[in-house]
Amino acid sequence: MLLLPLLLALAGSVAGDAVEAAQDQLPPRPLVIQLPTAEEKRAEEAAEAELRCASWRTAGEANNLAPWAAVPEGCVPHVRAYLTGPAYRSDLDLVAREASAYARSARAADSTNDAAWVFDIDETLLSNLPYYAQHGYGLELFDHREFDRWVETGEAPAIPSSLRLYREVRDLGFKTFLLTGRTEAHQAVTVDNLRRQGFHDWDKLILRAAADREKTATAYKSEKRKEMEAEGYKILGNSGDQWSDLLGYSMSARSFKLPNPMYYIP
Amino acid sequence: MLLLPLLLALAGSVAGDAVEAAQDQLPPRPLVIQLPTAEEKRAEEAAEAELRCASWRTAGEANNLAPWAAVPEGCVPHVRAYLTGPAYRSDLDLVAREASAYARSARAADSTNDAAWVFDIDETLLSNLPYYAQHGYGLELFDHREFDRWVETGEAPAIPSSLRLYREVRDLGFKTFLLTGRTEAHQAVTVDNLRRQGFHDWDKLILRAAADREKTATAYKSEKRKEMEAEGYKILGNSGDQWSDLLGYSMSARSFKLPNPMYYIP
Repeated sequence: MLLLPLLLALAGSVAGDAVEAAQDQLPPRPLVIQLPTAEEKRAEEAAEAELRCASWRTAGEANNLAPWAAVPEGCVPHVRAYLTGPAYRSDLDLVAREASAYARSARAADSTNDAAWVFDIDETLLSNLPYYAQHGYGLELFDHREFDRWVETGEAPAIPSSLRLYREVRDLGFKTFLLTGRTEAHQAVTVDNLRRQGFHDWDKLILRAAADREKTATAYKSEKRKEMEAEGYKILGNSGDQWSDLLGYSMSARSFKLPNPMYYIP
Repeated sequence: MLLLPLLLALAGSVAGDAVEAAQDQLPPRPLVIQLPTAEEKRAEEAAEAELRCASWRTAGEANNLAPWAAVPEGCVPHVRAYLTGPAYRSDLDLVAREASAYARSARAADSTNDAAWVFDIDETLLSNLPYYAQHGYGLELFDHREFDRWVETGEAPAIPSSLRLYREVRDLGFKTFLLTGRTEAHQAVTVDNLRRQGFHDWDKLILRAAADREKTATAYKSEKRKEMEAEGYKILGNSGDQWSDLLGYSMSARSFKLPNPMYYIP
């Protein structure tokens, strides 16, 4: 009887399942051998997930992904670590610095009153991270009602680097147009939230009207940019966390894509 | 005399240089105290550089950077580690998988003979990593003559995930157009290099003619895409490592940006 486990172990390379079944009958292996193996396996799996999820996040920023409804399940730890650690802040800061350098040079080349900069609001000027921290960092499917309740608190904090950029762009004399997917029903709370966070003196705040409800963000925002152009404005800069803030027609001379691995809006 | 180093050490917070000068006269500090401080400082600097350079690389992939002539000096270790480690391969693989999924669905929706896919060559189908490994991974300013000598060896290896995608796209019945910034002088060696690496049966290989020499890549490639459209082709997919492969006019229905932190072509 004692030979059976041994024989099974020897046959391990071709009969793994049988060995596993037989291991119940063996005395427990010494911890010093067993533990590193489990740890190594976890470390290997974590490294593999990190690699895969970093590729997924980078592909999103480069607009390589097909429309997605939720963060891949295995990537929530990666997304949470990214958003709550220093990397998100570092990425936001760098994009704002690039936008700032461009704003100054664009203004040096064009000092007319028609130069305009378009800003998206959510995840661009204001952060909904407090909401998403309570909703799985993008793992949960988007819940309009829940999110509306959050918007209506008016508690979304400013993204610091965006506030600095906003003020600089205003000071440089750009017309500032806030173009958001929020609906007109949220006009008052949005104005209030923006002001309490230090955003003032925008030239126009454009919210989704009832007629815009069925349009994709790309179509709605392109239409609104085209209207700005028709009114004589030259859109020199555009800041947004979604490619649908930036692509389409009547595109800005230069666009700045802020990072957002939490959700995708077509 | 023995008091001098001690007094200098006490004044350390306001006279660091003097303390450093005096340390030659002090007995060596115990290693257990001294080493972690230096190591910690190096680790902190490395973490800071890693954060900053990862942000720089991500910003490049999202087309947020102004035209750049060389990798920021402090970021060469980051870029080298990225390119020679698993992350570059992982990013390339993911972009190819996204492109492949899109190619299949696009072909299911459009089975005509006019559907076309545009591929760039350098850093898209073929890799010049062996060259850049010898030239500072993008730190050195681009040297046309040196790079031409490399191109003329015809030794550029295929990017494996791109070769798989290329074959799949061909098998799906897309017309395949290779649109490269290489000049017509390099036609023979390019054809030879591609074939030896497994690329066959493309429908057209378009190289830069003398008349295209002064054009930006964006202008040259847009013109060529427009010619394809004028010939009746519908460009459904476009793969390139530069935004100038993808943006401009006559843009593809969907574009796939392969990673490239080594160089920027306007």
